Amino acid sequence: MINQAALALGTKRNTIMELADYGRSRAAIVGKENVFDFSIGNPSIPAPELVQSTLLDILQNMDPITVHGYTSTMGDPKVRAIVAQDLCERFGCDSKAEEILLCCGAAPEVAAACKALTTEGAEILVFAPYFPEYKPYVEQAGAIFRIVPADIPDFQINFSALEELICPNTTAVIVNNPNNPVGAVYSEATIQKLSALLERKSEEFGHRIYIIADEPYRELVYGDAKVPFIPNIYPHTVVCYSYSKSLSLPGERLGYIYVPSAAENGRDLYHAILGAARAMGHVCAPSLMQLMLSRCAHLHPDLSVYDRNRRTLMEALTSYGYEMAKPEGAFYLFLKAPSGDDRAFSAMAMEKDVLLMPGSDFGCPGYLRLCYCVSYDTVVRSLPLFEELIKE
Amino acid sequence: MINQAALALGTKRNTIMELADYGRSRAAIVGKENVFDFSIGNPSIPAPELVQSTLLDILQNMDPITVHGYTSTMGDPKVRAIVAQDLCERFGCDSKAEEILLCCGAAPEVAAACKALTTEGAEILVFAPYFPEYKPYVEQAGAIFRIVPADIPDFQINFSALEELICPNTTAVIVNNPNNPVGAVYSEATIQKLSALLERKSEEFGHRIYIIADEPYRELVYGDAKVPFIPNIYPHTVVCYSYSKSLSLPGERLGYIYVPSAAENGRDLYHAILGAARAMGHVCAPSLMQLMLSRCAHLHPDLSVYDRNRRTLMEALTSYGYEMAKPEGAFYLFLKAPSGDDRAFSAMAMEKDVLLMPGSDFGCPGYLRLCYCVSYDTVVRSLPLFEELIKE
Repeated sequence: MINQAALALGTKRNTIMELADYGRSRAAIVGKENVFDFSIGNPSIPAPELVQSTLLDILQNMDPITVHGYTSTMGDPKVRAIVAQDLCERFGCDSKAEEILLCCGAAPEVAAACKALTTEGAEILVFAPYFPEYKPYVEQAGAIFRIVPADIPDFQINFSALEELICPNTTAVIVNNPNNPVGAVYSEATIQKLSALLERKSEEFGHRIYIIADEPYRELVYGDAKVPFIPNIYPHTVVCYSYSKSLSLPGERLGYIYVPSAAENGRDLYHAILGAARAMGHVCAPSLMQLMLSRCAHLHPDLSVYDRNRRTLMEALTSYGYEMAKPEGAFYLFLKAPSGDDRAFSAMAMEKDVLLMPGSDFGCPGYLRLCYCVSYDTVVRSLPLFEELIKE
Repeated sequence: MINQAALALGTKRNTIMELADYGRSRAAIVGKENVFDFSIGNPSIPAPELVQSTLLDILQNMDPITVHGYTSTMGDPKVRAIVAQDLCERFGCDSKAEEILLCCGAAPEVAAACKALTTEGAEILVFAPYFPEYKPYVEQAGAIFRIVPADIPDFQINFSALEELICPNTTAVIVNNPNNPVGAVYSEATIQKLSALLERKSEEFGHRIYIIADEPYRELVYGDAKVPFIPNIYPHTVVCYSYSKSLSLPGERLGYIYVPSAAENGRDLYHAILGAARAMGHVCAPSLMQLMLSRCAHLHPDLSVYDRNRRTLMEALTSYGYEMAKPEGAFYLFLKAPSGDDRAFSAMAMEKDVLLMPGSDFGCPGYLRLCYCVSYDTVVRSLPLFEELIKE
């Protein structure tokens, strides 16, 4: 009488969380400083000072019944208005409070968006390499999960493969920009081309194909890279945002969904997402964090720490002979496995307490994901190990 | 291309949240003190002082990267051990950390438990009157939602109706004790009788029928009433707990699932729930709140405020001629609609800015739910309105 699909998911687990748990257990044995845990995207810079001081101020000066009480399921209306206004200022759009739904982070947002866009026989496409949790989100919604193979070595979109896979049953494509696990940024030209293709296919099939834009890394870009704001190019987009990375609050579960009213059937889509979230037990986003957001939504992360890690690793690893995708965003390097076998390399690295996720777990064998959201000291002390590893 | 069931849920909305939103909008017009909002179970006593001081202490003295970082999906292992230990002390059971899963409140817990117990053709039973969100939780899981009619006027379990409805497809029954919306407590004798019936039927059908025990009100009981701890009677039970009511933190989304290993296939069931939660986007319970719990799990709520409201309302309303279920737990009165028509009475009350949920929304027409988790002043000033209402 137990659901076997759920059992498989709960037994096999999220391989990222599993490797991170392993890292924590190793740290307890050999000491935290001796584990080079590049497994998980847990921000290594603290939440901005204003976040900390705002949380303290709210706790010290506001009525706890209000602070910790239920908000509207969509989120506190004032906070939603502030989030909408912040989007207007960042991207020159015209978002409004009623187009925003505050949620417990991007994960349940993407799951709810998938559910809302699942009709009989629906197919949802992702671009490899992809965040592995998309598969359970799509499948729990009842849709078919289709993978567009990677565009190697540029890690933009493989349009010929997309054109082959897109079909009348396609209801949505998930775009994760900047990309996890690659750290690549889909350029404006790529999104323009995707938009044109979806426009053409929507017309051909007689129904709209939506973009689900999973954007927790939107503010994490380096050098000259620019992340296009997809609704400005293709309005038929559900933006799933999280403050996990930009405000360094991954454990607090705070984000929002933005469905532009300009999207085809945009209001219905907003309400369908609300309904889908409700059926999965969404009551409201954590209330203290919602209140904090009313004063902190405008913040930008200080990227200097990540950027130093990124440049240090990129230069050293390249000098040892590693190849990698151009790392423009998020806090990931996507390394080519020197032997070609990512699982073997990951296992070999694990023996030196260097934790790297195999690309196979993201639908892209032959690569490894390295999360450089760690201390600079960890980066520097890991370099000799990477040099040993490529020699072995 | 939009999921119509999700759209219906998102458009129609949770009627409780809708009435509560209406209350907030009326308060903005006529003043908060002029709205007698008995619509929603938002605790009216502040979180205990230790919760507040612990939150401040964590924010002021711990590393923010740790405080706000991801925890294990199951929850911080130390916090789970403390929760398990607290259960042992409260109920003399032998719960362990690995049987605990920290979650974002009881709503996603019940949704995940329903999913984990849904196989092809599964039916899940609830007892009227029931919390209306059970229906979307059961249906999103893919199971059939069956309602066992109310046991009027005692509001225990209608066993003859249960015996008629239970069938080989039944995988679980949801028990909400103390009950929302009634405020009744299922007695030990009732749970013993339920246990015996489920034991007999499990044997007859050749598979286990589980109890999903939704227990956010477990610590809210008055007078001599005792809430039996169901796993001590029937180990094949998934306990879904929330700190929303006992610690007055409904907006913060914090609770746990407890699956005793003594439950049939208990470990598989635990993992299936974990997998189901993962597929719905569960990443971890809010991390700051998890840490708070490590010092506050042992607290008991101060019930004196609710108890005064309860007794004041009970006495006054009875003297005006209202009839109600015996209110032993939670913070609800379940009033018989004087005219017999609960929707008409609720509409009439709304004209006086007295907000009461119709029992029809809980599968029990002819009654009204009154949440007495409001200020004593609201209670006292509402009394003349209740007197007017019954006269009309």
